[in-house]
Amino acid sequence: MGLIVQKYGGTSVGSTDRIKAVADRVSNAKRRGDRMVIVVSAMAGETNRLFKLASDLCDAPNARETDVLVSTGEQVSAALLSIRLQALGLPAISFLADQLRIATDSNHGRARIKSIDPARVVQELESDRVVVVAGYQGVDALGDITTLGRGASDLTAVALAAALKADVCEIYTDVDGVYTADPNLCPKARKLRRISYDEMLEMAGLGAKVLQLRSVELARRYNVPLVVRSSFNESEGTWVGQEDQSMEDVLVSGVTLDQNQSKVTITGVEDRPGLAARIFGPIAAAGIVVDMIIQNASADGRTDMTFTVNRDDVRRTLELVQRVAKEIGATGVRSDDQVAKVSIVGVGMRTHAGVAAKMFEVLADERINIEMIATSEIKVSVVVNSKYGELAMRALHDAFVDNAAMQFPGESA
Amino acid sequence: MGLIVQKYGGTSVGSTDRIKAVADRVSNAKRRGDRMVIVVSAMAGETNRLFKLASDLCDAPNARETDVLVSTGEQVSAALLSIRLQALGLPAISFLADQLRIATDSNHGRARIKSIDPARVVQELESDRVVVVAGYQGVDALGDITTLGRGASDLTAVALAAALKADVCEIYTDVDGVYTADPNLCPKARKLRRISYDEMLEMAGLGAKVLQLRSVELARRYNVPLVVRSSFNESEGTWVGQEDQSMEDVLVSGVTLDQNQSKVTITGVEDRPGLAARIFGPIAAAGIVVDMIIQNASADGRTDMTFTVNRDDVRRTLELVQRVAKEIGATGVRSDDQVAKVSIVGVGMRTHAGVAAKMFEVLADERINIEMIATSEIKVSVVVNSKYGELAMRALHDAFVDNAAMQFPGESA
Repeated sequence: MGLIVQKYGGTSVGSTDRIKAVADRVSNAKRRGDRMVIVVSAMAGETNRLFKLASDLCDAPNARETDVLVSTGEQVSAALLSIRLQALGLPAISFLADQLRIATDSNHGRARIKSIDPARVVQELESDRVVVVAGYQGVDALGDITTLGRGASDLTAVALAAALKADVCEIYTDVDGVYTADPNLCPKARKLRRISYDEMLEMAGLGAKVLQLRSVELARRYNVPLVVRSSFNESEGTWVGQEDQSMEDVLVSGVTLDQNQSKVTITGVEDRPGLAARIFGPIAAAGIVVDMIIQNASADGRTDMTFTVNRDDVRRTLELVQRVAKEIGATGVRSDDQVAKVSIVGVGMRTHAGVAAKMFEVLADERINIEMIATSEIKVSVVVNSKYGELAMRALHDAFVDNAAMQFPGESA
Repeated sequence: MGLIVQKYGGTSVGSTDRIKAVADRVSNAKRRGDRMVIVVSAMAGETNRLFKLASDLCDAPNARETDVLVSTGEQVSAALLSIRLQALGLPAISFLADQLRIATDSNHGRARIKSIDPARVVQELESDRVVVVAGYQGVDALGDITTLGRGASDLTAVALAAALKADVCEIYTDVDGVYTADPNLCPKARKLRRISYDEMLEMAGLGAKVLQLRSVELARRYNVPLVVRSSFNESEGTWVGQEDQSMEDVLVSGVTLDQNQSKVTITGVEDRPGLAARIFGPIAAAGIVVDMIIQNASADGRTDMTFTVNRDDVRRTLELVQRVAKEIGATGVRSDDQVAKVSIVGVGMRTHAGVAAKMFEVLADERINIEMIATSEIKVSVVVNSKYGELAMRALHDAFVDNAAMQFPGESA
């Protein structure tokens, strides 16, 4: 008899009919003898509806009160699923974050979980009840409701799975699993049967929206096996877990495309210590995440500094950078929204050389110019003109994923 | 500097525009220097929407889970009002029942308040914040959310006012105050400036829906002055408080009409001790409230027993009564939905004789037959054929309320 934590996302509980379908699924799993903890998101659209109400009343709604407001979405889902499970004759009970002492800091809207007290859950599981938990929320030291950030019902599920030492944490969503590329853009994309935490982190960070980044980090830290599955069918899904030998045989697990970046360039920056800190300090202080940073080789003591930020942040970034550029005597600032970041991810890169070189070759064959390059142990990212983004993605998918012969570039070419 | 508890009902916070209007009102009151606690209901329609979701999933939804579900309505309102107050530059903070330890029993759906810990509210008021509280909800000894019954945000407000020893509890609604009769049915009805707790209790119990019955009982017990006002205009409203000398000069404060009763008659009941208990025991056990009970004078050892119940309960009542009637050898059971209860209420009756007689005279003049009569210290109720209900109400209003000469029947006629 195992202990399973299941999490159902907004589309999975998006209507009373969908909640009925989820209850049937839980009921079937329960009858196989497992102990079950179910974490639910708000019904699809509900969180946005609540945020809209707040923004109708205030341009910048207070974060504490916004958390009181939006946390009701998950509360409603949890109660409704519990009601439906009971209608099926399955003993069930719902809990909110404060009842399970899902303790967080007071960083409203993006609080971090500090601890969970699983005693009440354990007790209810021992009474053979299905425990339904409102995702996305926590409680701080003052007893105030906090929320954990968008998509963070995944985090609630993983944290509970870790605290309960669950056998598996199943994330139910509206896609079948993790794909080698976005199937909407890349027709040859196929579902991965298995993927390592590290690869999933790179994929999540690079724009694959299947799993929330922080939840994968937490799963890796506590070694919680994840399964990403669809609640709309019986397909197997993708298993996310610790890297093993067989994974290294696969050079590239996935290709990602991020069309939501902008490139900012500061030209004629004097090439002396401390200037990078002057430039990026204020950006970080403003809470803007800088992704890739490239500093060109210095010519006559001056250099160009180029970096990418999320497109939503580009206006604020330019304001900050233009001020600094003037102070440090840079010659100019320019930005470019017409960029796309294309990446290949795979733990196999750790043990196989020449992957980046092969990637550049594939793009060159398509006559796609590379504007920026960044690499990590298990990832190579390039920035290209956005009009070539999808082409680059498909070409790389063909070369690395679809074409088995390319799995070992050392042997090919 | 006073302490004011204000409660805003569902229509008063029924949209973001309405919430803005309420915030303006609170803001104006606050600027007069008072400390303010605001209790809010769910936005109009929201509680019904949530109940509907539950009933889509289960014919008889679990009461604990239903409370988790429907309590979100008030939570949303509290957060939104707090957000709007802050947008106006007024420091505000919202609280849920568990944060103020509004402790109740575990009778989900109609829990009773056992105690309130006002410490956190007092602290926030001393920091000059407006405290916004989600009405209608409590928390039981297990830490589970309870609700106090329909309309019970009034109760939350009165209980808080009592715990805080507030100077006044203002109940904002969509009517101007308490009227001498339902203005929709009785064109000459006028708003009362003052009314005693006892009269208000009789009026509330008799179908005037302005104030929830239990909240008036609580206000009387703790001597909390109530003011019923409209949030849609600046009209003065009605003050509800302890009876004083001047109130006794007014013979009849109001006339009420209840068109929602049914009459049940058991004929040929043997006239011996214990049979009333046999009849009404099972009805009480089924949670059905019996209002008026009349036993006709016995003829040849047999009597007729007539009583009224809420029309919604008549079918269940008949099932129970028919079974008992057979057991005790009564000759028959019949029911009549075509009845109306008309009542006159006033503390002046305590000190003035002849009010009931005058009432019967007024009805006789209109050729209205009286089917049942019941009296209390400050009330006379009659049951008449429902088609005469409104006529009876208007005639009694003309005679007792509108016509000043009738205020002292001892002197008139």
